[in-house]
Amino acid sequence: MSEERLPTRSENFSEWYNQLVIKADLADYAPVRGCMVVKPYGWALWENITSWLDREFKATGHVNAAFPTLIPMSFFEKEREHVEGFSPQLAVVTHGGGEKLEEPLVVRPTSEAIIGYMYAKWIKSWRDLPVLIVQWGSVLRWELRTRLFLRTAEFYWHEGHTAHATAEEARQEMFSILDIYEHFCHEQAALPVIKGRKSESEKFAGAQITTSIEAMMQDKRALQSGTSHYFGQNFAKAFEIQYLDKDNRLQFCETTSWAISSRIIGAIIMAHGDDQGLVLPPRLAPHQSVIVPIYKTDAEKGTVMETAQRISTQLRAAGVRVKTDDRDNVSSGFKFNDWEMRGVPVRIEIGPKDVAAGAVTLARRDRPGRAGKRSVPQAGLAQAVADELADIQASLFSRALDFQRANTHQPRDYEDFRRIVEDGWADAWWCGEAACEASIKEDTKATTRCIPLDQPGGEGRCIKCGKPAHERAIFARAY
Amino acid sequence: MSEERLPTRSENFSEWYNQLVIKADLADYAPVRGCMVVKPYGWALWENITSWLDREFKATGHVNAAFPTLIPMSFFEKEREHVEGFSPQLAVVTHGGGEKLEEPLVVRPTSEAIIGYMYAKWIKSWRDLPVLIVQWGSVLRWELRTRLFLRTAEFYWHEGHTAHATAEEARQEMFSILDIYEHFCHEQAALPVIKGRKSESEKFAGAQITTSIEAMMQDKRALQSGTSHYFGQNFAKAFEIQYLDKDNRLQFCETTSWAISSRIIGAIIMAHGDDQGLVLPPRLAPHQSVIVPIYKTDAEKGTVMETAQRISTQLRAAGVRVKTDDRDNVSSGFKFNDWEMRGVPVRIEIGPKDVAAGAVTLARRDRPGRAGKRSVPQAGLAQAVADELADIQASLFSRALDFQRANTHQPRDYEDFRRIVEDGWADAWWCGEAACEASIKEDTKATTRCIPLDQPGGEGRCIKCGKPAHERAIFARAY
Repeated sequence: MSEERLPTRSENFSEWYNQLVIKADLADYAPVRGCMVVKPYGWALWENITSWLDREFKATGHVNAAFPTLIPMSFFEKEREHVEGFSPQLAVVTHGGGEKLEEPLVVRPTSEAIIGYMYAKWIKSWRDLPVLIVQWGSVLRWELRTRLFLRTAEFYWHEGHTAHATAEEARQEMFSILDIYEHFCHEQAALPVIKGRKSESEKFAGAQITTSIEAMMQDKRALQSGTSHYFGQNFAKAFEIQYLDKDNRLQFCETTSWAISSRIIGAIIMAHGDDQGLVLPPRLAPHQSVIVPIYKTDAEKGTVMETAQRISTQLRAAGVRVKTDDRDNVSSGFKFNDWEMRGVPVRIEIGPKDVAAGAVTLARRDRPGRAGKRSVPQAGLAQAVADELADIQASLFSRALDFQRANTHQPRDYEDFRRIVEDGWADAWWCGEAACEASIKEDTKATTRCIPLDQPGGEGRCIKCGKPAHERAIFARAY
Repeated sequence: MSEERLPTRSENFSEWYNQLVIKADLADYAPVRGCMVVKPYGWALWENITSWLDREFKATGHVNAAFPTLIPMSFFEKEREHVEGFSPQLAVVTHGGGEKLEEPLVVRPTSEAIIGYMYAKWIKSWRDLPVLIVQWGSVLRWELRTRLFLRTAEFYWHEGHTAHATAEEARQEMFSILDIYEHFCHEQAALPVIKGRKSESEKFAGAQITTSIEAMMQDKRALQSGTSHYFGQNFAKAFEIQYLDKDNRLQFCETTSWAISSRIIGAIIMAHGDDQGLVLPPRLAPHQSVIVPIYKTDAEKGTVMETAQRISTQLRAAGVRVKTDDRDNVSSGFKFNDWEMRGVPVRIEIGPKDVAAGAVTLARRDRPGRAGKRSVPQAGLAQAVADELADIQASLFSRALDFQRANTHQPRDYEDFRRIVEDGWADAWWCGEAACEASIKEDTKATTRCIPLDQPGGEGRCIKCGKPAHERAIFARAY
């Protein structure tokens, strides 16, 4: 860790983020344009994210599989909107094994095309449906302006691809996945999100319906944290994914796709971090607790380390992910700062006085300074730490939810709307017209983030054009 | 599953393998030259393989991270032997975002180059060492002749890359990993392997020492099932991976790399499969047990399905991975064949007679027909199944070990050697000269598979040239 302090969030939120990713040792810039290296600490966080999601997908009948990284260029051209959406972003392999290829291959930017091709081959009968496959891996989209985790040319994700007999079942799948995503954000990432439908102009290339979850960052910009798409028969027709129904008639499948990417790490950083560094939700933190032994003399070291060892074993047995920082070339103060930068939820300080008192000092990451510190007896410590972790998890969520609510406003009129989206989210009636959306965007840089699934009902006047509006939308500047 | 039977192994081993991979639903041919799609059943098997290895690597201090899929071409050219080894196999990205790139990017065939570059940036002091990083993912090598799992252009693997202060420590790491690989093969895959050193001509491009584990397939050809390399300072010098030692002197690191790939699935298929299909080792099987309910009338169905449900819950609670085949559009006979093809270790048949007797019928996959069938009381069934699985696991290993020993011979002379390698492995004194190795290969198609770490000691005469030899080598035809 560098000794230089971070810029504060209020000084420069963007620089705070960029430096924090590096100083917290999550990722590094790769020597390949727009790509990142996810370092071990960042990857451990990602593994905690992915393993929860993987368990949940499997529990709901999904299975994993792997499709090629390279996709023939011609596949991309089969679905018109899809090719228009992705063409500018493709990385193209033109040579293989020392020779020019007859047909160029694309490094996958997403896998609908190749998976659609295989589904057409595999699916014959209604008995083969639904097909519920998830692929874990990375994809590549040539991005001009990149930022670690938030927007990188190569990023990590899962992509779910499902095929169904009926439109109803496919739409149900899309919504069920969105629920899993919301559940993940709320329970695991302590990230309050709004579930909603994307406007026509914000939809995924080729989708009939795109749904998303949207989270508010501390600079009040929105971050799309997961998407779930319903394609209708668009891809099924492009790739001839057909099945014989119970009456032996040939039908097109209805398909979906959905994803959460490594971007979610950016959301976690920007929703919870503070001026000292990362603040990780306990359920996802690679180390939930770090033990910092404090001593001066060799005699002190002996008793302190013995206690640290015992407590580490005790916590580990209770299922707490704990690390002991036994470095002897840096001061305790340095260690405190270092683990605060890395966002470890609970620090356990053990000094000679703690040993003498049969206690330890617990420090909560989410309440820096004296306010978050207390002495706790060593007896029953595992339970005390588990309780503290649960409390931190709940506090982070409610703090973020309060923040989101306090910064989401219902505009009285368009002038009010303009003021609101300067520094918050606007929850406003919208007529649904692309023209209104575009003019708002040009005017304020705010876009429709989503049309929340949870609508108040009733009717109002479009915040921009004043025409009758049946739905409210969330407008915000976004990542 | 297709209704056509497999060719038998003795009819055509190669065709038996090719058809089995498809019929057992492990993988499919992708519409991209030389690439495969790993289907859900195959990927579930791969996940059982990777999760054991991942746990073991973490338990021995390794951490995971992710490096870019694309590597600048110039990186490849920094280590002379490395570039010579991989140049003919590269897939090259020349265009990105609609424009020609200034420098072409290579789809990684292996990641020493880009990881070496990052290590040079990260490692400063002896305190930073060792660095023990594993990357899970896929790599791409343009192969002309491909076969599912055994040799595909894109394949799945982990690649470990470590940097150490001393040669001794790096070599120790290489051997420790080889031990983990052996342990995996013996305990999990039921695959007896020989650990050894590769000859100079069979080494990895850029390595000082390459070690491998070699397994015998049922056609008596050898399959290299994992490799662990010691690079000395070759990569450290090419990429300037240096550290300040305790005396503040700048030193080059010593590095290693190692891998097991999705090829190991090919090894498992060819070591254990029989003429009815796959035979999976219980510890790795996606379904360790399949329940096949047998009934004719609706009344029978009721009681049989109730019992099946109860037993499934009971087994699952005991940690057995169990599946119930409740398809009603195929016969029990079809189901038996289907699950035999897929290699499920234990089949549990439940018919009206079993229900009446408070029993079930267990059928072992490794002993087809009546010999492997017995009636077992429902009370205590979970333990009976667990015992059966343990016994199958042990039987598969000892059967494969007996086979390997029975087909490995010590040749009396070169004529004997030629006869042996026609249909087995030769364990022979070898002078170590590349010329002898090359002439044996030309003459018999057999290559040195490895120089076993476990040597008898003493001295002999080279099986080919008759010069003094200090080590014995395994010679065989190989995949």
